[in-house]
Amino acid sequence: MIKVGIVGGTGYTGVELLRLLAVHPDVQLTAITSRKEDGLPVADMFPSLRGRVNLAFSAPDKADLTQCDVVFFATPHGVAMAQAPALLAAGVKVIDLAADFRLKDQATFEQWYKIPHTCPELLKEAVYGLVELNRDAIKGAKLIANPGCYPTTMQLGFYPLLKAGLVDAGGLIADCKSGVSGAGRKAEIATLFSEASDNFKAYGVAGHRHTPETVAQLQNFTDQPVNLIFTPHLVPMIRGMHSTLYARLTRDISNEELQALFEAQYADAAFVDVMPFGSHPETRSTRGSNMLRLALHRNGNTVIVLVVQDNLVKGASGQAVQCMNLMFGLDEGKGLNQVALLP
Amino acid sequence: MIKVGIVGGTGYTGVELLRLLAVHPDVQLTAITSRKEDGLPVADMFPSLRGRVNLAFSAPDKADLTQCDVVFFATPHGVAMAQAPALLAAGVKVIDLAADFRLKDQATFEQWYKIPHTCPELLKEAVYGLVELNRDAIKGAKLIANPGCYPTTMQLGFYPLLKAGLVDAGGLIADCKSGVSGAGRKAEIATLFSEASDNFKAYGVAGHRHTPETVAQLQNFTDQPVNLIFTPHLVPMIRGMHSTLYARLTRDISNEELQALFEAQYADAAFVDVMPFGSHPETRSTRGSNMLRLALHRNGNTVIVLVVQDNLVKGASGQAVQCMNLMFGLDEGKGLNQVALLP
Amino acid sequence: MIKVGIVGGTGYTGVELLRLLAVHPDVQLTAITSRKEDGLPVADMFPSLRGRVNLAFSAPDKADLTQCDVVFFATPHGVAMAQAPALLAAGVKVIDLAADFRLKDQATFEQWYKIPHTCPELLKEAVYGLVELNRDAIKGAKLIANPGCYPTTMQLGFYPLLKAGLVDAGGLIADCKSGVSGAGRKAEIATLFSEASDNFKAYGVAGHRHTPETVAQLQNFTDQPVNLIFTPHLVPMIRGMHSTLYARLTRDISNEELQALFEAQYADAAFVDVMPFGSHPETRSTRGSNMLRLALHRNGNTVIVLVVQDNLVKGASGQAVQCMNLMFGLDEGKGLNQVALLP
Amino acid sequence: MIKVGIVGGTGYTGVELLRLLAVHPDVQLTAITSRKEDGLPVADMFPSLRGRVNLAFSAPDKADLTQCDVVFFATPHGVAMAQAPALLAAGVKVIDLAADFRLKDQATFEQWYKIPHTCPELLKEAVYGLVELNRDAIKGAKLIANPGCYPTTMQLGFYPLLKAGLVDAGGLIADCKSGVSGAGRKAEIATLFSEASDNFKAYGVAGHRHTPETVAQLQNFTDQPVNLIFTPHLVPMIRGMHSTLYARLTRDISNEELQALFEAQYADAAFVDVMPFGSHPETRSTRGSNMLRLALHRNGNTVIVLVVQDNLVKGASGQAVQCMNLMFGLDEGKGLNQVALLP
Repeated sequence: MIKVGIVGGTGYTGVELLRLLAVHPDVQLTAITSRKEDGLPVADMFPSLRGRVNLAFSAPDKADLTQCDVVFFATPHGVAMAQAPALLAAGVKVIDLAADFRLKDQATFEQWYKIPHTCPELLKEAVYGLVELNRDAIKGAKLIANPGCYPTTMQLGFYPLLKAGLVDAGGLIADCKSGVSGAGRKAEIATLFSEASDNFKAYGVAGHRHTPETVAQLQNFTDQPVNLIFTPHLVPMIRGMHSTLYARLTRDISNEELQALFEAQYADAAFVDVMPFGSHPETRSTRGSNMLRLALHRNGNTVIVLVVQDNLVKGASGQAVQCMNLMFGLDEGKGLNQVALLP
Repeated sequence: MIKVGIVGGTGYTGVELLRLLAVHPDVQLTAITSRKEDGLPVADMFPSLRGRVNLAFSAPDKADLTQCDVVFFATPHGVAMAQAPALLAAGVKVIDLAADFRLKDQATFEQWYKIPHTCPELLKEAVYGLVELNRDAIKGAKLIANPGCYPTTMQLGFYPLLKAGLVDAGGLIADCKSGVSGAGRKAEIATLFSEASDNFKAYGVAGHRHTPETVAQLQNFTDQPVNLIFTPHLVPMIRGMHSTLYARLTRDISNEELQALFEAQYADAAFVDVMPFGSHPETRSTRGSNMLRLALHRNGNTVIVLVVQDNLVKGASGQAVQCMNLMFGLDEGKGLNQVALLP
Repeated sequence: MIKVGIVGGTGYTGVELLRLLAVHPDVQLTAITSRKEDGLPVADMFPSLRGRVNLAFSAPDKADLTQCDVVFFATPHGVAMAQAPALLAAGVKVIDLAADFRLKDQATFEQWYKIPHTCPELLKEAVYGLVELNRDAIKGAKLIANPGCYPTTMQLGFYPLLKAGLVDAGGLIADCKSGVSGAGRKAEIATLFSEASDNFKAYGVAGHRHTPETVAQLQNFTDQPVNLIFTPHLVPMIRGMHSTLYARLTRDISNEELQALFEAQYADAAFVDVMPFGSHPETRSTRGSNMLRLALHRNGNTVIVLVVQDNLVKGASGQAVQCMNLMFGLDEGKGLNQVALLP
Repeated sequence: MIKVGIVGGTGYTGVELLRLLAVHPDVQLTAITSRKEDGLPVADMFPSLRGRVNLAFSAPDKADLTQCDVVFFATPHGVAMAQAPALLAAGVKVIDLAADFRLKDQATFEQWYKIPHTCPELLKEAVYGLVELNRDAIKGAKLIANPGCYPTTMQLGFYPLLKAGLVDAGGLIADCKSGVSGAGRKAEIATLFSEASDNFKAYGVAGHRHTPETVAQLQNFTDQPVNLIFTPHLVPMIRGMHSTLYARLTRDISNEELQALFEAQYADAAFVDVMPFGSHPETRSTRGSNMLRLALHRNGNTVIVLVVQDNLVKGASGQAVQCMNLMFGLDEGKGLNQVALLP
């Protein structure tokens, strides 16, 4: 059994980790920390876990996380980098669901996240946890930077096109839409039900932290300089993410060839579903599951890729568990066979 | 033109007052106070008011509210009682949308609201602003205690039955459901979209502040001792309130007589719509309008009254404007002719 | 492996059976019928099942359901009674998720469902599939009448009170609220998003088919004549059911004794969670899971029981799988360990 | 008083016309036709209109629409062209909210709408009812083709850029999102609450009827050949439309100049609100009102225009009333001063 610790179990990625790990056959939940909720049974905060998770939150200083085999950080940016070095030194593997290790470039990190990086030496060692594009490195990793939710959809959607040198990397557009849970479990007026329901808006159009992360990764796939316009929007639904990606073809290719390209790319990917050309994936077809679905469209020399996922599963906690499975030599789908909840 | 001031214009009852008063033909919006938002144009906070309300919030100490003819308090409990005495002394009428003057009994107030009452001498003078049951007193009032949202539905639903001595006042049940805006515009986890959407729950079953208010008022209609079981629930919708009222008949009466009783009672009430016997009023039929609709059902010797309203209009700000109209000699429906937004 | 057939797999209880059975370790999905969709791959209609269910719908006359070990009917009322006799004769077990076998009394069935019963001789043989109250009979059953969604909550909530003779069986009130999926996957204006969203209403107050079913079952628990007022309401959420039950105590009992009564009653019930006295269960704490949760409240001599479940799982398809497990000698929770999706 | 007839009053644009016209000071509702609902009081179908609209639906053959001054067609495509010639001949003005007269080119109409056009001679006479771009022609019009909802946002967003020759007309992208009411009040599975709620998807990406309408209009503003990629999506909200428009600048211009360009263009437009550069308009800021709001963003040489409106008001019935006002010499905002419903 893998002994698992979770730092910061009171947010949405934390409770989602608990939902998945509570039924994972090879996992033993060992410790869950929360500074504020020390002593509170986890199931008192999340009644969905009554009878399934019997742990209580413990204060960070009381939990001996070094007894764990792996520790997930479901925390705000900055927490993982403070604790990771000691855990790694003690032989504990670390999976950070925040952004502390996503950017290889320290200056870029500090520019976008407005905090100094306290262990830049780990940036090189950290492995970016997008399984479908990075499987082998993840298998041997000790420290995982779990990808952002938007970046997951943009990378898996653009990757086959960039790798094949088919499109203008300097003119990528990603018009993305996220459910409200992406904003986290923080008491804020903008995400109150009465503000976010029956409403739609863009946000952060001038600059979103997922842009540098995505551009840096996309740049790995092509020699052309990547330029990405990323426009996030807020959808009145709890879970779900839909990215509408636009790329201009730079050479002639048939729709059948495009489709074949994507199907070949993801033939072995258990959690990427390439749907028939011209179909319209719905976010609910992934609700609660680790599946990402995409479909191709064509309008003249523009390729449109529609990508959907559950932002809390493939976009966060499910992806983290997928990484954990690989790090411990398990089948990457272990404990992740939930069928999407539809309706 | 009536010069209107609003204290606390940043919550939902405040912005709803602004929506209604911005198009009221006899009103001149004169001052809106907010401690936190001093100097911020109102329309910057509420873009729905761009081009309609040109005022900025002003700090309470800067706003000379004594220049107003009437001041609405759309504030947390406790604010109105601190400022009302001075305003009244200056000849300004006061309408409090909170609970400061709803309970005639000081001890009951202090028990339920956990704060001392600072001007108990005004409790007697204050007029309870439920227009349909109190019209004449409101016309002459200087200080209005605007009713709570739930109490409005419970009183208008039970009143004809109690007044006619038809039911057991000691066995009333009100199973009530409210949209989330009833919880106000406060940053709280429980009313986040991701918590309150796609969900239903009861709350405050052990005791809700609207119980003593309702019981005190219902007791005015009958000599029997009133006992009320009030169970509030939270509905994943922004606006709307639905009360399902149960009362046991203590003497024989036909359905036709029951229906006639209610129709007669509310024949002159522009904002109470007695629907056909056996129909099912929908909250959306009142969305954005000041109308309250109700319908009667019968099961053996139990009368079931279904009552709907928009909790922010007839349940709060619309009712307050209705009171204001009467206090200034206007038709009570002035500025309140909005048709409900359906769909 | 249990070979399973499903008649009528295109509605919500059908696709929910598929979601549950696709990951059930002892089940082999063998046939799914649909008159209209003959030949259509199931996953083309429900993309959530892509890669999970490889069957296509087949026309009823083409599917040899007698090769199955058990057949579920997820059909409108009237279909199961037409096909059950032949299947039973062929040794196939039958679980009907509709109402064909729920009422023991043929006349009552025909009065409420407006169709003649074509195999009344099976009414006696049929076992009512409410596991927690009927476990032993279900183990030996060949024909299961799976309970209605509302009746499940009302029975499990009222049962301990009636069995203990604590309450006035002649004055029960159930104020119930259901998510919209309870209305099924039928093209109807009343359940369109633009009609049912941001809205709340009661329906069927004059008489709902779940009343005779519930009253007949409750009557089994007490010698007093049962009278039930049942008021269903429609909540703007997809899944979830919340029943607020009111019963008047006829003898003195402490809150602690009440709580102990319920805890003892359901001590062995894996899918009934008796929450702490005075708590407020939320429907989302059961979303997608087979758990039913309840909590007790007290107001004078009235007991209030709050009951929540997912109407499509414990209220329909999950309960049916629970029955199947028992009928085939499996642990009743096999394949039903999904943790509720929260948020 | 303008005598108004409405053909097809049972859909969402029909009931929205009724909501607006019921309080329009210069309008007398005279006839509302519905083939199916002959004799049914309008307020029985739409209880929001109880006490406000006292008409009953009448069968088309019973209603003498020639007694009206103007007739609105809130009908499926094809109805208006069958009845408009006779009405126009009788001196009645006609406003069609469907597509019968939106396309000047008969062949294009027939290609996209799959029905023959029965009065192509009226296509030339029909005036496209986008007030802000066509005010003078509308004043003198007898037959109005009311614009589609999406096209309204795309035209008002792209117009200043195209007219000023600032952008590449051959590379326009419109990523648009609509509330579900845009699909109309038709009983269809895809728009059921349980299908469309808590979900997001694109639809019609391969070709939507609003593309030829928009391209034809945009082509009027520029000599360059227009090419538009239009991607519609469905948002789980009742009302509201958000268009995210992308255009590549072909010459240098500062953000301040861009902003000034839009502000100058719409300086006299009572219903177009140019928000500050870089802001994020929300659909709810227009809910129930005739206002369209837009804001500009810039990313390198790409201009991003965010446009929001209520699809049923400025996107349909409000725009039609705005046209009517002009056709009858009234102020274009008469009866359209509703403040958006927020929250």
